[in-house]
Amino acid sequence: MSAPRESACGNSACGGGGAGGSGEAHRELMSFQRETEALAQVAGRLGWDRETVMPRGAAAQRAEEVGALEAVLHARRTDPRIGEWLEKIDPGRLDEAGRASLRLIRRSYLRHTKVPGPLAAEIARVTSLAQGIWAQARAAEDFSAFAPTLEEVVALKREEAAALADGGDLYDALLDDYEPGMTAGELERMFAALRPRLVALRERLLGAERQPAPLTGSFDEAGQMALARELARAFGYDFDHGRIDRAVHPFSSGSGLDVRITTRTSPDDPFNCFYSTIHEVGHAAYEQNIDRAFLLSPLGRGVSMGVHESQSRIYENQLGRSRPFTAFLFARMRETFGDFGPADAEAFYASVNRVHPGFIRTEADEVHYNLHILMRFDLERALISGDLPVRDLPGAWDDRFAADFGMTVDRPSNGCLQDVHWSIGLFGYFPTYTLGNVYAGCLYQALRAAVPDLDDQLGRGDTSAATGWLRENLQRFGGLRPPQATIERACGAAPSEAPLLAYLDEKFGALYGG
Amino acid sequence: MSAPRESACGNSACGGGGAGGSGEAHRELMSFQRETEALAQVAGRLGWDRETVMPRGAAAQRAEEVGALEAVLHARRTDPRIGEWLEKIDPGRLDEAGRASLRLIRRSYLRHTKVPGPLAAEIARVTSLAQGIWAQARAAEDFSAFAPTLEEVVALKREEAAALADGGDLYDALLDDYEPGMTAGELERMFAALRPRLVALRERLLGAERQPAPLTGSFDEAGQMALARELARAFGYDFDHGRIDRAVHPFSSGSGLDVRITTRTSPDDPFNCFYSTIHEVGHAAYEQNIDRAFLLSPLGRGVSMGVHESQSRIYENQLGRSRPFTAFLFARMRETFGDFGPADAEAFYASVNRVHPGFIRTEADEVHYNLHILMRFDLERALISGDLPVRDLPGAWDDRFAADFGMTVDRPSNGCLQDVHWSIGLFGYFPTYTLGNVYAGCLYQALRAAVPDLDDQLGRGDTSAATGWLRENLQRFGGLRPPQATIERACGAAPSEAPLLAYLDEKFGALYGG
Repeated sequence: MSAPRESACGNSACGGGGAGGSGEAHRELMSFQRETEALAQVAGRLGWDRETVMPRGAAAQRAEEVGALEAVLHARRTDPRIGEWLEKIDPGRLDEAGRASLRLIRRSYLRHTKVPGPLAAEIARVTSLAQGIWAQARAAEDFSAFAPTLEEVVALKREEAAALADGGDLYDALLDDYEPGMTAGELERMFAALRPRLVALRERLLGAERQPAPLTGSFDEAGQMALARELARAFGYDFDHGRIDRAVHPFSSGSGLDVRITTRTSPDDPFNCFYSTIHEVGHAAYEQNIDRAFLLSPLGRGVSMGVHESQSRIYENQLGRSRPFTAFLFARMRETFGDFGPADAEAFYASVNRVHPGFIRTEADEVHYNLHILMRFDLERALISGDLPVRDLPGAWDDRFAADFGMTVDRPSNGCLQDVHWSIGLFGYFPTYTLGNVYAGCLYQALRAAVPDLDDQLGRGDTSAATGWLRENLQRFGGLRPPQATIERACGAAPSEAPLLAYLDEKFGALYGG
Repeated sequence: MSAPRESACGNSACGGGGAGGSGEAHRELMSFQRETEALAQVAGRLGWDRETVMPRGAAAQRAEEVGALEAVLHARRTDPRIGEWLEKIDPGRLDEAGRASLRLIRRSYLRHTKVPGPLAAEIARVTSLAQGIWAQARAAEDFSAFAPTLEEVVALKREEAAALADGGDLYDALLDDYEPGMTAGELERMFAALRPRLVALRERLLGAERQPAPLTGSFDEAGQMALARELARAFGYDFDHGRIDRAVHPFSSGSGLDVRITTRTSPDDPFNCFYSTIHEVGHAAYEQNIDRAFLLSPLGRGVSMGVHESQSRIYENQLGRSRPFTAFLFARMRETFGDFGPADAEAFYASVNRVHPGFIRTEADEVHYNLHILMRFDLERALISGDLPVRDLPGAWDDRFAADFGMTVDRPSNGCLQDVHWSIGLFGYFPTYTLGNVYAGCLYQALRAAVPDLDDQLGRGDTSAATGWLRENLQRFGGLRPPQATIERACGAAPSEAPLLAYLDEKFGALYGG
């Protein structure tokens, strides 16, 4: 695999002659692009700083700093010279990486220039205020306090989608920001196959006689952080190019040589700390393992939200919550915390994977999680198409929740006010969570075939064969291929929901004595 | 005192009519300037990040990030629109703060546009490499390995100075970057008055029969950090708008609502931690206490290096190393570390202020420190004028050191290779350290007159009257007045070296039984 910098001309292969030629235009474009990406990394670092170390009184100044940097980035992303350079460059003279870079640059340029500047500025303004209004409404359990703002956000996003869609489907235009090449129609087909199977599975499991016990007791938070670092290392997180801090919400931030993660601790729930850490390590390892030749190039980031989520999910669930790895974790937790309840590794495995009903997406288990996403996908499609007026959202939410989860939503913070996404204009983002789980299912199937003794290794706390396989077959390629082609390259088959369903049926069927 | 934002028109006072008028030009300029300042704050934060939390493998990517942001800043600072706006604005329509802002913007614009772009880029390139070459040469005790690079830096800085000087003195042109309005001639006069008095004082003190003992023992580093935080709070550091971390070199970073400091600990030298902290709190409190109306405006930063250093020095020395405050510190250290040597507060006070010979500037006491600076000032003036060829620097350094300090330099790392400054192109910077001490002497004299019971308060660990006086009479004004006018406004008289000399004579004469 050759690198974009090598293919960035200066060599004879794509020389293209004197001033104004393809070669020179390509050099200038790639150099301009590299600076833009470096500035985007700076913007990301400001976000990390805000969530981890920023003094609490600095928020107002920080908002201006971020605004100034975002204005610089927006001006660069819509710089008319990009269009001129793109016109001059002959892609036929570039290698695969060079062509892929060019494709991503063109995509970004069209994306950013299609939306009129005043509309982009208005979306930025409204969503920056909307998050605070949403938070207040959620705290007050008052949807009506948020509804006018959400109506404004939906209207602006519809306008943005219309500018992007060129007459096509509005939702597809928004989805394309997060999962290029994916369509709502394709998701609809996939989700239609998932939904009845997941509803049936959850009913069967919750009705089973054997129910695992949740953990009880208290777990020293310094001990949790020490073990979290050990788990990060076990999953291949590179501390020379990253660091772990605590934050209110776990996240991964940055690409290339500086990819930082956060986690959190709670004295009575060590799984939150450990599995948040492993999840974020999945995201971070993807970024850290991209071919160094792609550093600060358009190929030097994870290719889509769905593929990103596939890495965090397979690290967290298929590997981290597997029977063999939980046996390893059980032993390490006993060494760290002493006797904390479960009698043996099997009881511990059942606790880790306990299926339990609940209102909140972020607290959901593997079986319930996708049902949360499926309903959000349908609801946000209806909001964007105009079929669902904002005022009818709570009713639609609660009806769907009752249908799929068998529970009545008791208050808005447990219902349609629980997620921040819509307030900040993220429409088309939710389905990539389930798409990540679907991709993870496919990858896990291929991984098991490629590494026959996977369970033995995981039982020793050794993930190197698994994470090495993901690095070699997926992570290192970064943005070289479109998302679905990236998955297909790794799995040898187009993505399908079938492996995920088979994995869930088998794992939870066995756990609940099915 | 009115604020630059209020004076930034939009109001009728400086309306100036329709498109293209003075009022509109002023609004546009101030808005552009505010974004530039916000981006400069981001650049500062990247520096903080690198020295405190950056993963060690991230340096190469960080260099590109910083380079991209500096390129954006340079383009903004030389943007021709600034010249156009400045031509259109009628300063007569602005209030004092508005005129001061305009003066600083014009100054920066002329400064940045006078130096040709290729020369600025070459200076950035050479100095970024030179620091590493200097560090290697210092480690190898080999001046000749650094000499060619230093020759290159000196030649480039002479070229830059010529571009800035408009036929005037080259050194003055460089000095003006750090202490606007100051001249080498004025410094020469001041330093000529200091040098013989300081040499005589050091000889007298080192020849005295009574010599204070240095501290012995070991001091828990967590205990040092806890006490350092307490000291920072005692000197008015605002943790809501700042934070303290450890770093190899103590520094203060940022302006306005986010001003962070670092310190360091050494198990056998708690004074290093405590007085580095108090010193940096002096810098940080200056930035934190500037009128909030000046936030992100040209007036929203400390006005010069000399005035900045006056704050760090008066916090550290005149207040922090005073007899009454050291009595408070002695009691707190006894509570924290138990019995650690000194029999009583007076013996502790003598230890804190022990005068000791040494080669290294950064380890020097109050009496020796300025002698280090005075020699660097004369040597760098001779380098810039061309009177001193780089190859003759070690000899000139060692001769001067023998004359003023009575000691023979034993190796380059104890001589002319000890400071990083010249390698990174900082010529004209050194004298601002002594200027800061001179200003601190003036301020301390005025402070004592204004707060008659200062010693009683300091003895209780209460600095609020002292730091409050500095805030009210100096810090809050930021860049409103030129540096020397800033000092004069606070002291009621033009700066002079006399108060510093009187302070040193009295303090150390008493300490050494003179």
